[in-house]
Amino acid sequence: VEARDPATPGLGEGRAPHRNEAEVEFNRIVSFSDGVFAIAITLLTFGLFIPEGVSNVTHTLLEQWPDLFAYGISFAVIGKFWLAHHRFFAALERFDGPLMALNLVYLAFIALLPFTSQVLGDYGREVATIVVYATNLACVNLAFHGEILYALRHDMLRPGAREDERRYDVPTNLILAGVFIASIPVAFASTLAATLMWLAVFLVGARVSNRLAGLGA
Amino acid sequence: VEARDPATPGLGEGRAPHRNEAEVEFNRIVSFSDGVFAIAITLLTFGLFIPEGVSNVTHTLLEQWPDLFAYGISFAVIGKFWLAHHRFFAALERFDGPLMALNLVYLAFIALLPFTSQVLGDYGREVATIVVYATNLACVNLAFHGEILYALRHDMLRPGAREDERRYDVPTNLILAGVFIASIPVAFASTLAATLMWLAVFLVGARVSNRLAGLGA
Amino acid sequence: VEARDPATPGLGEGRAPHRNEAEVEFNRIVSFSDGVFAIAITLLTFGLFIPEGVSNVTHTLLEQWPDLFAYGISFAVIGKFWLAHHRFFAALERFDGPLMALNLVYLAFIALLPFTSQVLGDYGREVATIVVYATNLACVNLAFHGEILYALRHDMLRPGAREDERRYDVPTNLILAGVFIASIPVAFASTLAATLMWLAVFLVGARVSNRLAGLGA
Amino acid sequence: VEARDPATPGLGEGRAPHRNEAEVEFNRIVSFSDGVFAIAITLLTFGLFIPEGVSNVTHTLLEQWPDLFAYGISFAVIGKFWLAHHRFFAALERFDGPLMALNLVYLAFIALLPFTSQVLGDYGREVATIVVYATNLACVNLAFHGEILYALRHDMLRPGAREDERRYDVPTNLILAGVFIASIPVAFASTLAATLMWLAVFLVGARVSNRLAGLGA
Repeated sequence: VEARDPATPGLGEGRAPHRNEAEVEFNRIVSFSDGVFAIAITLLTFGLFIPEGVSNVTHTLLEQWPDLFAYGISFAVIGKFWLAHHRFFAALERFDGPLMALNLVYLAFIALLPFTSQVLGDYGREVATIVVYATNLACVNLAFHGEILYALRHDMLRPGAREDERRYDVPTNLILAGVFIASIPVAFASTLAATLMWLAVFLVGARVSNRLAGLGA
Repeated sequence: VEARDPATPGLGEGRAPHRNEAEVEFNRIVSFSDGVFAIAITLLTFGLFIPEGVSNVTHTLLEQWPDLFAYGISFAVIGKFWLAHHRFFAALERFDGPLMALNLVYLAFIALLPFTSQVLGDYGREVATIVVYATNLACVNLAFHGEILYALRHDMLRPGAREDERRYDVPTNLILAGVFIASIPVAFASTLAATLMWLAVFLVGARVSNRLAGLGA
Repeated sequence: VEARDPATPGLGEGRAPHRNEAEVEFNRIVSFSDGVFAIAITLLTFGLFIPEGVSNVTHTLLEQWPDLFAYGISFAVIGKFWLAHHRFFAALERFDGPLMALNLVYLAFIALLPFTSQVLGDYGREVATIVVYATNLACVNLAFHGEILYALRHDMLRPGAREDERRYDVPTNLILAGVFIASIPVAFASTLAATLMWLAVFLVGARVSNRLAGLGA
Repeated sequence: VEARDPATPGLGEGRAPHRNEAEVEFNRIVSFSDGVFAIAITLLTFGLFIPEGVSNVTHTLLEQWPDLFAYGISFAVIGKFWLAHHRFFAALERFDGPLMALNLVYLAFIALLPFTSQVLGDYGREVATIVVYATNLACVNLAFHGEILYALRHDMLRPGAREDERRYDVPTNLILAGVFIASIPVAFASTLAATLMWLAVFLVGARVSNRLAGLGA
């Protein structure tokens, strides 16, 4: 079957255009990553659903506050990771198979967040929950750190962006991973203290990153 | 690893093309938002699923009418928000970090709708349910209002679209948020009256917006 | 904040490019529709999931055959609808607000299919189930018919594609809707007969559409 | 309604641009496939969710190790399939209706993986589980084999990519399908042995494919 005149397209036939192969491939990786981010961030609500047949809905809804809190935190977390991922991919000049594999590992930890976030919402005072959530976040940061390091070592970033990544994203990732790992022993003493550590790093992190961004501007 | 001749692409290697950085970034934000909209609108059916082993399916299916009603309402709501978001992003001339953060807040409330819609379908006569659903819709409108205001104040809209947003979308959002907030005290008197308020604002809103659009044409 | 040199992009800033507004808008509608299709088709598996703690998994898995059958049917149904939607949008020369609204109504019925398909898999011998599934499919066809009619009446299709839609897609949609509606009274006599009607229309439909496509080539 | 000046776009109106029909169609197929991949890979976590009201969360979380293992395996599996699909579509020069139908069959088996993976995580020591999971993976490979064969026979691949597919992807697919089918009788003797066969083929497969890629470079 030959493709017909493009002005009168047939039933699902046509030439696959390849004017710019690398652009198509790169866009597929980016849009696949974005798909996983969008799905994970939307599935965060799964911890909130209320089964049918609950006797006192008002009470049940009021009891959902910790779930809503976990939802808010995790939405902010995934949103920030998405922005950082966004920036990293905008800085990439080229990519290869190992970087795509590292990106899949990174996405595997992103996709776990709806699960660990649901556990956080329903069992936030349990040490095991805090350990699981903190481990998940630390793994996301370390996987992202791996992607950035690989890209830096193999000289895959655009000249202008190289220094930004080295000075800004590398330490940010390591500090975040460190705080999440440090919160694990803290959780054995107090789950509340561990949770506050995450909030602190977010608020301070936002300020620091804004200042760094301001310096860079 | 160097990218090979584009005519014979390798195993997941290539140059990341950056002919137009801003276009790539902007498209990612738009497609991420669309992803969240598409997933949220499709997850609306979650309130409808019937567990295995129900004794009288006919009866159970007939009892799903309120869930189907909630599905229809929420699908229309998300659809309308998507069209408005669509129009707003088509009017943007440029964007920055805070606008992206505001957009994430907006999406967080959109992503909550499958949850609040499920509760509305299963417990639509409870005051708490109406309060939760109305609050969710009001928050979507207020977050969107925040995005539009920010874009207007920082002069981010195209000249032709600025007046449209100011005269059309700003009041529409505020009126909708007002009606949803006003329906909360009404719900304590009658949940039916609160629901009818939402329907009324939709039907009237559609007519008003068509008229405004007609004037603008 | 002004956008910087595109060679050194900032933290999520940039100009929103609008070289071709209509193209961006059209692509958003298409990719939003595709998102709903992709999510609905993937959520079809929800009827299959097995709860934890089942005593005899082998038995439970063997009992999933009707669910797997419903999955196969519904996957083929959504796949065919997607191909038809695909062809219709490829034939569109322009679009307007009402067509987008019709498209949302169409997508609302597509997004219902994971629910009605799950019910079909779990309660396929119940009359109510057949009625619900047949109604869903008839509504998809009628909504699609509405989109095509609207586009034909408002002269929105490309000249070459107009006749194809009129001669091929319009009757196909009406015949499919008719068969699904006709299967509803049949289901009251025999649910098996109703199911076989659907299979027949698929197998015959595929042959007829291939012949029509062959004639058109 | 005529489309207005693109500088002042109306309410969801505009010309649908068709500068390059085939490119739009091809991109829709690719992005639809990517959507199914992204959703399936993110839904893999569904086997992990913990119901509310569990008495000993620590214990329950520790018992999730097999689920996490199944998640890791299935994420790697879908990731590898995605990379291979990616490469195949990058090699396509044109496509037709039957190839799109084959691609839908392929995606139907990909979309089943969250279900079979959930069963693997919860009932990994049952023979039936291993049979179901191995059958699913074998079907994915055979469906992909069908796509590649069809494209080769109808001369749809770019000249440079034809030999790569014939020498590299065709045998890889058949070997993988063979190992998964062979693991089914093995499972009746030992489910552990069957699982180890999958791991072995992955580890060896990765090394072999890297070597083949190296030879091809």
